Order: sequence, then C-alpha cells, then structure tokens
Amino acid sequence: MILPLVWSLHYKEPSFLPFVISAVITGVSGALLWKLFPSGDGSLSRREGLALVTWTWILVSFFSALPYQLAGTFPSFLDAYFEAMSGFTTTGATVLTSIESQPQGILLWRNFTQWLGGMGIVTFFVALFPMLGLGAARLYEAEMPGPQPERLAGSIRDTARALWWLYIGLSALEVLLLLFGGRLPLFDALTITFGTMPTGGFLHQSLSIGAYNSTFITSTVTLFMILAGVNFGLYYYLIWKHQSPRHVFGNPEFRLYIAILVGASFIIMLDLITNMGQSVGEAFKYATFQAVSIQTTTGFTTANFNTWPSLSQTILLILMIVGASAGSTGGALKVVRISVLAKYAFRQIYLVFSPRSVLPIKLGENVLPESNVSRIIGISILYFATLIIGSLIMSAMGLDNITAFSSVAATLGNVGPGLGSVGPAANYFFLPPFGKFILILCMLIGRLEFFTVLVLTIPAFWRWR
Amino acid sequence: MILPLVWSLHYKEPSFLPFVISAVITGVSGALLWKLFPSGDGSLSRREGLALVTWTWILVSFFSALPYQLAGTFPSFLDAYFEAMSGFTTTGATVLTSIESQPQGILLWRNFTQWLGGMGIVTFFVALFPMLGLGAARLYEAEMPGPQPERLAGSIRDTARALWWLYIGLSALEVLLLLFGGRLPLFDALTITFGTMPTGGFLHQSLSIGAYNSTFITSTVTLFMILAGVNFGLYYYLIWKHQSPRHVFGNPEFRLYIAILVGASFIIMLDLITNMGQSVGEAFKYATFQAVSIQTTTGFTTANFNTWPSLSQTILLILMIVGASAGSTGGALKVVRISVLAKYAFRQIYLVFSPRSVLPIKLGENVLPESNVSRIIGISILYFATLIIGSLIMSAMGLDNITAFSSVAATLGNVGPGLGSVGPAANYFFLPPFGKFILILCMLIGRLEFFTVLVLTIPAFWRWR
Repeated sequence: MILPLVWSLHYKEPSFLPFVISAVITGVSGALLWKLFPSGDGSLSRREGLALVTWTWILVSFFSALPYQLAGTFPSFLDAYFEAMSGFTTTGATVLTSIESQPQGILLWRNFTQWLGGMGIVTFFVALFPMLGLGAARLYEAEMPGPQPERLAGSIRDTARALWWLYIGLSALEVLLLLFGGRLPLFDALTITFGTMPTGGFLHQSLSIGAYNSTFITSTVTLFMILAGVNFGLYYYLIWKHQSPRHVFGNPEFRLYIAILVGASFIIMLDLITNMGQSVGEAFKYATFQAVSIQTTTGFTTANFNTWPSLSQTILLILMIVGASAGSTGGALKVVRISVLAKYAFRQIYLVFSPRSVLPIKLGENVLPESNVSRIIGISILYFATLIIGSLIMSAMGLDNITAFSSVAATLGNVGPGLGSVGPAANYFFLPPFGKFILILCMLIGRLEFFTVLVLTIPAFWRWR
Repeated sequence: MILPLVWSLHYKEPSFLPFVISAVITGVSGALLWKLFPSGDGSLSRREGLALVTWTWILVSFFSALPYQLAGTFPSFLDAYFEAMSGFTTTGATVLTSIESQPQGILLWRNFTQWLGGMGIVTFFVALFPMLGLGAARLYEAEMPGPQPERLAGSIRDTARALWWLYIGLSALEVLLLLFGGRLPLFDALTITFGTMPTGGFLHQSLSIGAYNSTFITSTVTLFMILAGVNFGLYYYLIWKHQSPRHVFGNPEFRLYIAILVGASFIIMLDLITNMGQSVGEAFKYATFQAVSIQTTTGFTTANFNTWPSLSQTILLILMIVGASAGSTGGALKVVRISVLAKYAFRQIYLVFSPRSVLPIKLGENVLPESNVSRIIGISILYFATLIIGSLIMSAMGLDNITAFSSVAATLGNVGPGLGSVGPAANYFFLPPFGKFILILCMLIGRLEFFTVLVLTIPAFWRWR
C-alpha cells in the first residue's frame, strides 16, 4: 500500500489517510499472526500448502479492500471485497460506478492489486523471502497457472525470481512506450500497464482504452496483452538459456494460441464488415483489440461488443472459456488444455475401430503423462460444471440467460466484462449481494484453478493424516 | 410404409399413391442391393458394422422422405429429409408449417418413423432376421444408446427381441389407455403413442399435447414419457428375471434420473408461481410436463416455455443436455454419464492431497472399467465441442445466441423444440438450407452417440486392415 500512499501524499489527496490506516492494520495483523504461529522449521505438508494458498488469497483480498472501505469508495464492504478480489485475481470485473470521480490514489491501488496478483502474490513471496525454505515448492505448485508448472531454473526460488524479473522488465517497457511513444501522463501509463501485464482489465476511466483515440496506444496495449498471454517459460528459454527463437516459438501451445487469436479476429472482422457496415480498417481495429483482450482474459475494451452481431458475441464467449497460454498471467481453461481435450476425444474415436492401440497424448515432441491428462480432464469437467451451475444460480436472481452465463464465464475465466447487463458499457454493481458472493467465489476458484480451493471442501482433507 | 398406406386407403385419402410408389422404390432398391452385394457367411468385421449402422440411418431417412416428397408435403427435398431424419432419430424437430392441413396418412407415417427409430431400426432387424448371424453383436454395439450395452438375455438376438416385446407391450398399453381412458380417436391414440414411447415428440397438431384440455391424457403421456426414459434393462430384470422391484429400482441411475426430474419440476414450479403469478395447480401441471418432456428428450409441449422466466429456461436447457437414462429410448448425454463425470472430477480433487490413492469409479456396487470411463469422457468432450462449434455455425447464419445454442442442443439431444426462434410455438422451417444440413448432422451424430459416425471421418479407418 506504500505506492498509492506515496502517490496520494505527493498529489495532496485526502485518500492518503485510508492507506495509512489500512497499512497499519495489515502490518499489525501480519505481526500478530507471525508471533502467534511460529514457522517452525519452515517445511510445509502438501495439505498445509494447499490450505495456505487459498486462505492467503481470501485474506489478502480482505486487507486490500480496507482502503476502499475507509475511503468510502463503495456503499458496502461486500462491494469493496468484490473489487479487491477482482483485482488480485486479475479479473477486472468492477462494481465501481463513478470511476472518474475517484482520487488517483484509489485508482492506482485498484490497478496495482491486479499487477501484484498477476504473477501470483504467493510466488512473489517465494521469490523474495528465502525463509519459506522447503515449503516453497508446495506453494508454487498450488498457485502457478497451467497444467504442468515447469521448474525452469535449478530451484523453485530461482524460477520464481526469473519470472518476476521478466514480468517487471516487460512492465517497465510498456510504461516507457506509453510515456514516450504515446505521450501519456505517468498515471495513465502506470494504470494501463498494471491492467495489461497481469491481463487484469481495470482502468481509471469507464471508456477503458476506447477513451484514447490513438493507434499507437491501442497497438502497444494489444502487443503487451498478447505478450502477457504467452507462457513466460518461453521467454525464459529465449533469454536465460539462449535457445533460438525459431525453436522456442515452435512450441505447439504458442502456435495454437496465436492461430486462435488470428482466426477469431478475422471472423469477427468479417462479421463487423458485413453485419455492422464497418469499414475494413475500423473492423480490423475493433475485432483485433477485442479478440486479444478477451482471449488473454484482460477485459480492456475499445468498443461496446454488446451491440455486435451474435456470431461475434459467440466467438467472444468461446474465447472467454478458452483463455490464453498455460504459464502466462491469463486465466480461463488455457489453450493447452483445449488441445489435450481434443487429442483425448480423437484417441477415443480411434480406439473404436482399433481397440488395442496404445496411443499416448503428445504435446509437440513430449508425451504427456496420463496423470496430467486426468488432471486436465478433471479441471475441464469442473470448469464446465461451474459454468452451468453458476449460470443456474445467477438466472435464479432474475438475470436473463446471456447475462447469467456471461457473468459466470467472465469471472471464472478472470476476464472482466461479460455480455448483456454485465457488458462492457455496464458493470456488476446492480447485482444482488448473493450474486456478488457467487461471482467472488468464481473469481477465486478460476484463478487458483479449482483443485487448490475445492480440496478444502472435502471432509477427508481435514481428517486424513 | 404399409401401415400409413392401409390407413390412407381405408380413409380414401389421395396420399395412398405416394406410399405405394415409395414402397415400390424402397423394395426394389433393397432387392437390388441384396443381389449386388451377397451377404457371404453373414459375418461382419468391426469396421463393417460401424460403417453399416451409419449408412443405414442415412439411407433409411432418405427412403422414408420419399412419401413426403411425392405427396408434396414440403417445398424441397431437404425439408422432407430433415423431417425424416428428425423422425428416425426421435428428435421431433419439425419443418412442417401447416400440420393440421396434412392428410392423416402422412401424419401417421411421420410419427411411425419415430416409433421405429425409437428402439433402433437396426436392433429391429437384428431381432427379426436371424440371417445376420455373427454380425448382429457388432451392429447392436454400434447402435444401442448408453455407455455399456448390456447383454440381458443369452444372445444379442434374444436381448433385442425381449426389448422389442417390452417396447410393443408398453406402446399397446398406452394406446389402450388413451383410447378407453382418454376417449381419444384411434388416430390420436396412435400418433401420441408413436410420439411418446420413442421419446420422439412429433404430433398431428401444432399445439401438441396442449391441444387436449384433459388431465387424464396429460398424466398418461407424462407417465409413459417417464417410463420410456428408464433403462429398458430394468424392466427386463423385473419381468423375465423375477427380481424384486426394490432391487431393480435401487439402480443408481434410475434414482438419479427420478431425482433430477423431481428437482427440476419443483424449481420450475416455484419459478412459475413467483415470477409468472401462476396458481400452484397450474404451475405443477406445466412444470412437471415440460421437465419430463424435455429431460426424456420427447419434446411434447403443453405450454410455450419460450415466455417462461430465465431460470426455468436455463433448467430446460440443462435438461436438454443431461437427458434420460442409458438403455432407454431417450437421447442426449444420459444421466449415468453425468454421474461418472462428477465422480471423475471428485476423484481428481481427492488425488490432489492423496496422490497415491487408487480410486475406482463405481456405479452402485459395480466398478466401472477405466476403458468405459475413458469412452464416457470422450463422448462428453465431443458432446460439448459439438454444442459449441454448432452454436458458432448457427449464429454465423444470423440467429441470436439463444436460438443458435438451443437449436443445436435440441437436435443433438434428439429433443425437438428449443428456445427463441426455434421455441415450442415456432419450428425449424425458416432456417437456411445449410443450417438445416448442420442440424440433420447433429440429429444423426446425437442419436448414434458420436463414435459410430465420427469414426468414418478418420482416414485411418478406411486404410487400416
């Protein structure tokens, strides 16, 4: 909370006081926990690691809702908590109705939570605090997005540190480009970057990126959204291991990710030209930006896609479920999982006429162990089950089908804006409290990829020694 | 075609001629195929069995479209073929706009195709023609709905015969109840039964069952829809094996099937009371009928659920995907598959904190082999992929999202009416030809449960010896 505090003080905003109080409460709570529960030898059991990650995200969102609460940003603490969870999970679904009238400190904090959540707050601590020792591997496993967390460097800690350097480096590059290329004020450059790199989507203006009428800014943001949706491991191989770009970007998930982006943008573009009467240039600009923004699960907008034809909307809904690459800061199911599901289905068709074949599932050259395949199928079942049950609950609150479904898809995939009443021109404020609670759960479950959270609901988890 | 031919002659309808000509064309074609391709020793390879079933359904629909074409029922052969495929797959999605002005012979034929398709035309031949010999098992496997076709009797042929006797017996019972209890004319009793027992849904009036203002008729139809949605194997055990009803109906899929029916009816009832201002009696009547009709994938209607609140519509959409029991005449994914998916996901959650556990998936007392689990997962992936890709194609034709999605869900699940522009008060006539073609494919793929059809699209299927 130091960053927004300093900013508020420098610009003499009255919101500096909420940050001081929040920082003190957070610090004292941390110190108390530290004293009450000594860390022992620093080792963690598997179950402790799993429980710790979920509780950390729940509590961190609680403490980062304090500045909103103390500054009176929202009418209720539930709203403040919704916004905080939406920040740390890099969702970008907002319940803030009067964005433009907020002090800069609050808006900076709002986007800074996304940036922190982007690469995972727990990974952040693993990178910084060596005291966690053996437990680090467990924490890292429970939190890293993607089907197979790779240990890129020799140790988990070195890996986390390398990923964070990459993340900071790319963020710095985007800030500099926006400052000097886009001639934006520092505040805008920071909030945009804090919304882009974690594929978050919050912004300090309700028109989002659409408020800037600048091709340079739109292009820069598009580029960095695409970069943020790539598996960070690929950059690591490129930079630290000096592998050839040709080899690194021959990665099958990377190729499929780019292919889906290009394909989706192209179809949306054709749809906008034929059914909305847009010129090729306009259609290209809007289609590309929205396809990238939704597939990377960022959620920035330059157009109100709620008014687009149904083909484009269907594509955006599918992209909300597909998501970006594993090991990126993006959310949703991830491209690699979709390709494993497709390979699994194809294998089953093949087995119908050739039942004795043994057909391992491959990603590029590598055979994926069947235990990973099972995990991917497990997550996919849970993903679609949550989409269906969540839509049912949301429609029980009187929302129309499209709003109900897209509100769940947009929060579960950590995207942000949905369609219908939660579309890009609207927000989530009007939802009843129980609806907000359900979507908070979706954001958390989606960000931690189900297992880490759901394992806590099994009674045997708590009994078993 | 003899049945509608005799009916047309008896009532002196001009439509008898189309049936005569169609019967001759079909008979001559059959005789020619018989002569050109002698059956040899009657044995079939696995691949021949798979290819034969798919081609049989495609060709049977072709020949049964002939009477429509010759009688001028539809403006194009594509429409006639759509209606024929919708009949044999027991879908009940119709492109017939002036139902009430059609001759009885045509309407009887329309519903009779559903009744024949219900238990599977190929199974029908297996039951009747002993000449198929060894090949019978292959045909039966490729066609029977449900994850694990059980051989109830000693041989496949005896099983098929027992199932057909059950089917005929239940159908006769429904006809008698409607004739003498409901005091309906023979024509109505026959078409209703030919629509109920195969969970088909065609009817000779556009208001469907809603045209009768009779609690007896509605209740009878509801009862027989529920009966048709039960695994016919349970009846076999009850009648031929003299097992206790308690044991037979303790079957886990049966219980879950009934539980979902009751739960869905109850929630829809509450929704209709609170959000449509219906009385408890009315709401009970409409909610129960529609939940049963949609979950059993019949598609009869007594209310225009297109005007219902979104919660009820969401439930109906989910029921369209869930479907009835395996081994019933119903379509869609089937209850047992949903429960296996849930158990699979739960197992994966358990494995997160106890990775070395060995946890077989059980249905009641029985362990389900992992190869069957994989098959179920394969079908489920293909089911949802088809739903998504199909919706995308349909929305590319300018349909709104709800119409696009529900048209695919309603044809793939062999349900019939969807929501939006393909809702219960509308029909499928207005769709462009390519849309009809896509939905014909959905009906076929859904009825034959994917693998049997999709295996034909793999080049290796044709190469491999």
